[in-house]
Amino acid sequence: MVRIAVLGATGYAARELIRLLLAHPQAQITALTTRSNDQPALGDVHPTLRGRLDLKVENLDATAISQRADCVFSALPHAASAEIIVELLAAGARVVDLSADYRLNDPAAYKKWYDHDHPDPSRLAETVYGLPELYRERIPGSQLVANPGCYPTSAILPLAPLLRERAILPAGIIIDSKSGVSGAGRTAKAHLHFPECNEAVSAYGVGSHRHTPEIDQVLSDFADVQTAVTFTPHLIPMDRGILSTSYATLSQDCDAAALLAILRRQYANEPFVRIVDGLPSTKDVVGTNYCDITVRVVHGRAVAVSVLDNLIKGAAGAAVQNFNLMYGFDETTAL
Amino acid sequence: MVRIAVLGATGYAARELIRLLLAHPQAQITALTTRSNDQPALGDVHPTLRGRLDLKVENLDATAISQRADCVFSALPHAASAEIIVELLAAGARVVDLSADYRLNDPAAYKKWYDHDHPDPSRLAETVYGLPELYRERIPGSQLVANPGCYPTSAILPLAPLLRERAILPAGIIIDSKSGVSGAGRTAKAHLHFPECNEAVSAYGVGSHRHTPEIDQVLSDFADVQTAVTFTPHLIPMDRGILSTSYATLSQDCDAAALLAILRRQYANEPFVRIVDGLPSTKDVVGTNYCDITVRVVHGRAVAVSVLDNLIKGAAGAAVQNFNLMYGFDETTAL
Amino acid sequence: MVRIAVLGATGYAARELIRLLLAHPQAQITALTTRSNDQPALGDVHPTLRGRLDLKVENLDATAISQRADCVFSALPHAASAEIIVELLAAGARVVDLSADYRLNDPAAYKKWYDHDHPDPSRLAETVYGLPELYRERIPGSQLVANPGCYPTSAILPLAPLLRERAILPAGIIIDSKSGVSGAGRTAKAHLHFPECNEAVSAYGVGSHRHTPEIDQVLSDFADVQTAVTFTPHLIPMDRGILSTSYATLSQDCDAAALLAILRRQYANEPFVRIVDGLPSTKDVVGTNYCDITVRVVHGRAVAVSVLDNLIKGAAGAAVQNFNLMYGFDETTAL
Amino acid sequence: MVRIAVLGATGYAARELIRLLLAHPQAQITALTTRSNDQPALGDVHPTLRGRLDLKVENLDATAISQRADCVFSALPHAASAEIIVELLAAGARVVDLSADYRLNDPAAYKKWYDHDHPDPSRLAETVYGLPELYRERIPGSQLVANPGCYPTSAILPLAPLLRERAILPAGIIIDSKSGVSGAGRTAKAHLHFPECNEAVSAYGVGSHRHTPEIDQVLSDFADVQTAVTFTPHLIPMDRGILSTSYATLSQDCDAAALLAILRRQYANEPFVRIVDGLPSTKDVVGTNYCDITVRVVHGRAVAVSVLDNLIKGAAGAAVQNFNLMYGFDETTAL
Repeated sequence: MVRIAVLGATGYAARELIRLLLAHPQAQITALTTRSNDQPALGDVHPTLRGRLDLKVENLDATAISQRADCVFSALPHAASAEIIVELLAAGARVVDLSADYRLNDPAAYKKWYDHDHPDPSRLAETVYGLPELYRERIPGSQLVANPGCYPTSAILPLAPLLRERAILPAGIIIDSKSGVSGAGRTAKAHLHFPECNEAVSAYGVGSHRHTPEIDQVLSDFADVQTAVTFTPHLIPMDRGILSTSYATLSQDCDAAALLAILRRQYANEPFVRIVDGLPSTKDVVGTNYCDITVRVVHGRAVAVSVLDNLIKGAAGAAVQNFNLMYGFDETTAL
Repeated sequence: MVRIAVLGATGYAARELIRLLLAHPQAQITALTTRSNDQPALGDVHPTLRGRLDLKVENLDATAISQRADCVFSALPHAASAEIIVELLAAGARVVDLSADYRLNDPAAYKKWYDHDHPDPSRLAETVYGLPELYRERIPGSQLVANPGCYPTSAILPLAPLLRERAILPAGIIIDSKSGVSGAGRTAKAHLHFPECNEAVSAYGVGSHRHTPEIDQVLSDFADVQTAVTFTPHLIPMDRGILSTSYATLSQDCDAAALLAILRRQYANEPFVRIVDGLPSTKDVVGTNYCDITVRVVHGRAVAVSVLDNLIKGAAGAAVQNFNLMYGFDETTAL
Repeated sequence: MVRIAVLGATGYAARELIRLLLAHPQAQITALTTRSNDQPALGDVHPTLRGRLDLKVENLDATAISQRADCVFSALPHAASAEIIVELLAAGARVVDLSADYRLNDPAAYKKWYDHDHPDPSRLAETVYGLPELYRERIPGSQLVANPGCYPTSAILPLAPLLRERAILPAGIIIDSKSGVSGAGRTAKAHLHFPECNEAVSAYGVGSHRHTPEIDQVLSDFADVQTAVTFTPHLIPMDRGILSTSYATLSQDCDAAALLAILRRQYANEPFVRIVDGLPSTKDVVGTNYCDITVRVVHGRAVAVSVLDNLIKGAAGAAVQNFNLMYGFDETTAL
Repeated sequence: MVRIAVLGATGYAARELIRLLLAHPQAQITALTTRSNDQPALGDVHPTLRGRLDLKVENLDATAISQRADCVFSALPHAASAEIIVELLAAGARVVDLSADYRLNDPAAYKKWYDHDHPDPSRLAETVYGLPELYRERIPGSQLVANPGCYPTSAILPLAPLLRERAILPAGIIIDSKSGVSGAGRTAKAHLHFPECNEAVSAYGVGSHRHTPEIDQVLSDFADVQTAVTFTPHLIPMDRGILSTSYATLSQDCDAAALLAILRRQYANEPFVRIVDGLPSTKDVVGTNYCDITVRVVHGRAVAVSVLDNLIKGAAGAAVQNFNLMYGFDETTAL
């Protein structure tokens, strides 16, 4: 039984993570943290979890956490996450970081996009980007895994194999993503007030969203050339789900069947990727750890459509998947 | 042309009010106020109104307001509203108060429900409750009209005629109301954060909502006996609309047709009340100044179902209706 | 391992049931039926289940079903359900009926409310109403369990203990319920078309909803006197969840704490009922088998607020709970 | 006073059209048609219009229509629309066609995309595409105006001026559009059933949507070269509103300010186009005839974001705007 701490336990991804881990036969949640000092019971923070785990959400330091837990999931904000992870790793804990802190390899890129010097720059290059479908072999031995962002997972899964197979060109890729509002976090903000974003769709962070460098880094890895995508996220009036429509120029004329065949080959043995013929809806995957993908060809471009649950495959589910791989459990346990 | 000021112009009811007044041939908006000092352009506060009125939203005192405007609509919070209205009335302005400050006749009731000494207690008893369908004759001569609350309008319109005709008993009335989230105002709050109230219904203020004494006061007036309703508001995941389901014991056996006949007689000449045979949806009235009402009989009780747009018939539309009556314009102008 | 058939597998409750049973260690789904002859793959009927169970949805008769399965869950429409259940029982299968066919004890009541002669009237009186929190002791020995309706479960759980303890009077109970649209089933209908019921709330079936006699029957059982509730369901623009606001006259003056104490006593050891102090939201229970309940006292009335997921505790979850009890498995397995 | 008929009066665009025309001082609605024979009252077809116009919705032929009306708005489906318009024009009526029948210049393109021989091919080339902001000078003299599609209006308004000014290249334009569900019409369909499209986003008609040739035609006109866009519409869980995110390669390096300047110049005097600095929400325009537009530059591409109400600027509002221009009324009357 692995003793588990969840840091930053008050947010939505943490709530899903706790829910998933409660059903995990090899995991026992032993600590929940927050950076405030209120010490509420878990059931008061997340009413849906009332009666399921008798723990307070406490303001704990790294020492206390590492005494209570073997494996730590951090759902803290970036920067805060790396600061405590440095200490947790030193104390011997294993860590799945759901923040963005260890996703980028390059401290300069981190500084540019997050406007902040990385607290632990030397570890960036060596930390595995925890997208099991593409980097599975590097996960089992890891003490630290960087859990991918929700948008990146949705865009990388369809595009990476097509780039590796040279079916599409790395230049000029456009990713137009649509996300439910839970992706924006739990803090009440004016533009996330119900009557503001209900019955409304809007774009945000056009060309400037922090998930962009993460997508660029992984696609560059598969394209073997520096890639810079145009990424446009949109806010959709629903709780959960991301649909990404990705546009990429075909390297040579082919039809959708050829592209689908590449994806099916790549993901044939993946438990959580489904290549589908029809156009998927986010509804097909919400509440699950699946990413459903299809692709079409229009005017010489691949148009890939991919859907996932931003809180599960895009966060907590991927984290449990990484945890399973780190510890050698069946990858699908509790998922 | 009546020069108009709208106080507290940043909220949703004020936005609807401005929109309606922009189409009013006898009204010219000359001042918009807020209690902050930012002085934003109207179009920045309410993007939907961009380009429609070249005014800033300013922090103005009563003197400045009364110099610029003949008639003032106050959408300020309670207490703040009465404080400036005292001065505006002294300066000769006419006022439609969308806050709750002048709705109750009794300063003690105000103190009890609003936890605050009324700043202008002597004027309470004489101020007309501006529900034109029931108190129209008192509105034309008024310098000040208290615009009714959204829930009260939805519940009073079906119940008052049935009480006056002694078709239902005043004891034991239950009003179970369902409101869209715009009724909770524009300020971002944790429980109004999109992912919290989307895909959710909840009750709030059970037995303690501040609209209760307002309903009690008017129903007591029509029942000729002190009436105390049980009022339960619920938050519904939609922008706008209120549906109230009201339950009242029949005073003697009758069928729905008899009750509908009473309502049809009462409202035969009303431009904004529609007595309907079918069960109405809030969708039938959102964006309009209508209140649609029907009634059924179940197990010796009248079950009235009424719908209105909380921001129009429940606020801004009623205010314009009152304005039209105060000034002798056609009651339906701009509505 | 119990071999399971799900009849009427194309609807929403069946989808949830299949999803739950896939995680049940003692259950193996071996047959899925529909009354059409298309024989689609399960994943085409329910895209969210794609890749999870390699079965077609077939038009099977009772013989074929009873050969393939030990236990049958019927999610067929009423009447159709009883017709095949008669045959399945004769063939020795055990059955959980999610339809309304075996819920009422009295064939005459069935005929009155469902406008149809019951195909198996002699079995009505003896069949257990499968609300485990109230009739658990009768479930283990049953060959057939009638799974309760979604609205009835939400209303009965708070009211039955208060009636049994004589804290509230059986006369004049009002149940005002609010349900997400999945409760209306999967068949596309004009009033369930997205733009018709989105951003709208409406009442339906006022005084005539078929869940009324089911509520009356159980409450009468606990009140020891014939009870006839006034039940008003409302359609809420959300997928899932029911909130019922129930109003009942106190038999003698008491406060909410006394009522909460009764409920806490009743449900102290129940795994799926949570008595809460605050006002619950449907969001607290959607996706779970919980029913959360609180109660207030207003003007001499108990006002109970209860929430559940109509497809889980109101249908598929309760069915699995009944299955667990029938077979002696841990009651919470797969829930 | 112009006597008006609305054909196909049962749909959503027709409802909005009737609502707008009821406020038009020079229009009098004298006939409403449907192709069924039920003859319902308008208020039964569109409950929100109850009590506003005492007309039945009738099955009328061209002769009856042209006797009753001077100007006919057709909201019939394609093909059916042109068939009756031929007769109406012959009878001397003036027509605004909200269907797609007269939008394309080329009968072969019509045949290809609508899979149907055009009933009136000779009139296609001469009929004005009624997008007033781009073709205003051709509208006043017209007997027939083809009202543009909702998606095309949203995409053409930002792109056409940038193409005309050669700021962007015509090759490789991508239009990724997000629409509320009312755009799919009023007929109940399985994929538009509330629980199917609520809390869901999906793409549809990828590369094959019938609005594509209409966009291509107009953009080709402004680019002076044959243009073929990649158009991907998405269904968003909201009633109304379209947001289109359009991607086009810059012809030479420039910043967003330069592109905004082009758009501001083009639309400086347009009453219904607002070029905004911030990223617009569909909420800013729903219920209005505005199209709000902004543009950004990312990696050498213009990223234009445009929003409009699909039923108003995308249908009924544009139709009234065209009507006003045809008859020489102030263009903004009733809008």
